[in-house]
Amino acid sequence: MAEVQNGTEAEKAPAVAFMAVKPWLVVDAPKASDAVQFYKTAFGAEELSRVMHPKRKANQETPLVLSAELKLGSAIVVVSDLIDEDSSPVKSAVTGVFCLETEEVESALSQAVTAGATAVGEISEGDAACCGGRVGKVKDPYGNIWLICSPPKKCADVAA
Amino acid sequence: MAEVQNGTEAEKAPAVAFMAVKPWLVVDAPKASDAVQFYKTAFGAEELSRVMHPKRKANQETPLVLSAELKLGSAIVVVSDLIDEDSSPVKSAVTGVFCLETEEVESALSQAVTAGATAVGEISEGDAACCGGRVGKVKDPYGNIWLICSPPKKCADVAA
Repeated sequence: MAEVQNGTEAEKAPAVAFMAVKPWLVVDAPKASDAVQFYKTAFGAEELSRVMHPKRKANQETPLVLSAELKLGSAIVVVSDLIDEDSSPVKSAVTGVFCLETEEVESALSQAVTAGATAVGEISEGDAACCGGRVGKVKDPYGNIWLICSPPKKCADVAA
Repeated sequence: MAEVQNGTEAEKAPAVAFMAVKPWLVVDAPKASDAVQFYKTAFGAEELSRVMHPKRKANQETPLVLSAELKLGSAIVVVSDLIDEDSSPVKSAVTGVFCLETEEVESALSQAVTAGATAVGEISEGDAACCGGRVGKVKDPYGNIWLICSPPKKCADVAA
C-alpha cells in the first residue's frame, strides 16, 4: 500500500496518466438488473458488459449483478447490486447527481418519466458551467438525480 | 413539465440523443475551491471552466463555486459548493464511487495519498466488469471513493 508522504512532489508534476473515469451506482440488491433496464429505456443506455456475482449464482439464489457497464452518451456508468462483503467498496447504496446533455430536453424528460423517473420541478434556465442552457430534472427510481441540460455554449468549445 | 405516460413507446425506440454525462460532486461550502485543487493535485484534473455564485460575490461573503468543470481522464466531472437555495438540485453534499483507470496503479495511489486522500485497504485483483485488473482504493477528503484500477482486457475492446 502506498505510504502517506510528506511532500509537494505530486503537486508540482502529476505524472500519472488516467483514462476512463466511470461513476459507479450501487443499488439495493437485487435491483441492479432492473436499474440497467431502466437506464436503457430512460436514457438509451447501451449495455457493454455484465458480470454476475459468482457465489450467488452457485447458491441458486437470486443472481446479483457484480457490475454492469453501460454506455450513456459519451460516458460509461457502472451499475452494481449492493453486496455485503468485505471487498465491497461501499456499505450502502450510492446515489449521485448527473448532468446529462442533450439538444432535446423536453423529449428526454418525457422519455425518462415514461420509463419511471419522477419529474422534479419545471424546466428552467441553468446558470452553472455545466448547465448553462435549459435544464430539467428527474429523479430515477434508485435515488439518482439527472439534470437534463441543453449544451451550454461555453462548454461546447472545450468539451464537444 | 412532461406528463407521466402509460406506454412502451420509449422502450421500443429511445429517440433522444445524449452527449456528455457529467457526475456532479457537491461539497459542503466553501470547500469546492479546495476540492478542485485536490483533484488537480491528486488526479491531474484540468479545470475547464468555473462559475462563481453571483449573490455571494455581491455580498462580499466568501465566494462560493456554483460549478467548476474538471477534465479527468476522458470524463468531465463537475464540482460545486452546496448552496442552500430552492434552485439547488440537492439539499446535502453528494458523494460517489468512481472507477478511475490507469496503467500506473501504485503511482496513482501514492499521488492521491500525497495529495490528501486516505488509502483504503490493500491493492487486490478486481473481479468486476469495470475493474478486472488490479484495484486500489482511496477515499478523498470530501467523502468520495475512488477505485484506482488497471484497465481490464474485457473492457478495453469496447471502451478504449
